[in-house]
Amino acid sequence: MKIITISREFGSGGRELGKRLADVMGFCYYDKEIITAVAEEVGMNEHYIEKSLNRGFVSAFPFTFHHTMVTHSVNPIPSAELLIAQKKVIEAIADKGEDFVIVGRNADIILKNRNPFQIFVHADMPSKIKRCMQQAEPENLSEKELEKNIKKIDTARLRTRELLSGDKWGAKENYHLTINTTNRNIKELVVPTKEFADSFFRRTI
Amino acid sequence: MKIITISREFGSGGRELGKRLADVMGFCYYDKEIITAVAEEVGMNEHYIEKSLNRGFVSAFPFTFHHTMVTHSVNPIPSAELLIAQKKVIEAIADKGEDFVIVGRNADIILKNRNPFQIFVHADMPSKIKRCMQQAEPENLSEKELEKNIKKIDTARLRTRELLSGDKWGAKENYHLTINTTNRNIKELVVPTKEFADSFFRRTI
Repeated sequence: MKIITISREFGSGGRELGKRLADVMGFCYYDKEIITAVAEEVGMNEHYIEKSLNRGFVSAFPFTFHHTMVTHSVNPIPSAELLIAQKKVIEAIADKGEDFVIVGRNADIILKNRNPFQIFVHADMPSKIKRCMQQAEPENLSEKELEKNIKKIDTARLRTRELLSGDKWGAKENYHLTINTTNRNIKELVVPTKEFADSFFRRTI
Repeated sequence: MKIITISREFGSGGRELGKRLADVMGFCYYDKEIITAVAEEVGMNEHYIEKSLNRGFVSAFPFTFHHTMVTHSVNPIPSAELLIAQKKVIEAIADKGEDFVIVGRNADIILKNRNPFQIFVHADMPSKIKRCMQQAEPENLSEKELEKNIKKIDTARLRTRELLSGDKWGAKENYHLTINTTNRNIKELVVPTKEFADSFFRRTI
């Protein structure tokens, strides 16, 4: 089983890269929206998680490249209960035995013993603001408001990772590859990233 | 003109990756040994630097994957005079207008305005010690001594970069790509790295 985990700064295009990578590799694809939806629907009952993952729930989940959180003012740190449910969903996904790409939710930590290929995607702030403005629902946030929200979400990601692991979120040492998407079109990065993933799964030492 | 700069932790295999990458891309190749040799030979006279670079000095310079510093006890921070001479050599290389890969010597900072593709190569300490033991001249340093020397050399690199730039050495934000070579065979990473470099030079935004 081949697993690719993508961690990313908000607005860096990591989710789009993950979806496109899954498509070209022929892998299943999971992200925060899917995992959270399953976790919220089924709570922590593993039997229901499995049923939910198997009955086509995931493939029916509409994927867009739109951002879904940047305009929210809610606390972006999930509750402990939701984190536990998300973890069980992620483990259930891996137990299915299929190759998959998973974006976010600290999946690299949760799946560490299954030896995933770990990617971190980042960009500079102007590039992330630009991407959010192009892709977010049109709520007309100012650049300043967007920057504030981006920082808030990424701080939550850093703190949530701290909760689960001693590994620092975003530190290159904790990933096989970090990709800077500043001024880059995500589509161009799909094939190079696939080459790295392929070489990782073929590795000889 | 296409320029690829490689910065690397000592023992991570960055130099081998740079040489192999230059070979598959058909680019010229320069590294610390070459630049320092030219700088020491010619001092700071740019006319002589150019003559030295043109008369086949570089291609005659023997390349090995062996490490050349880990067993030395000299202070690994170059003198200011040598840094200035190295900078002039690097600028003279770029002025030749050929595509090239350059490893070390803060070439990414020196050549920033020529828009190089910037790579950072790193690995965990056990992996770097193993690589040094396999490749260094057989002086039979203990693992502990090797670790001490590796840390000393990398601290010197960090401090030398601080001198030239506000950019932090090794921070992912300052590179287009960071590659973790822990438990990897460098040969396997050449084609994926080439794909990233190609996509960078073809980029559309």
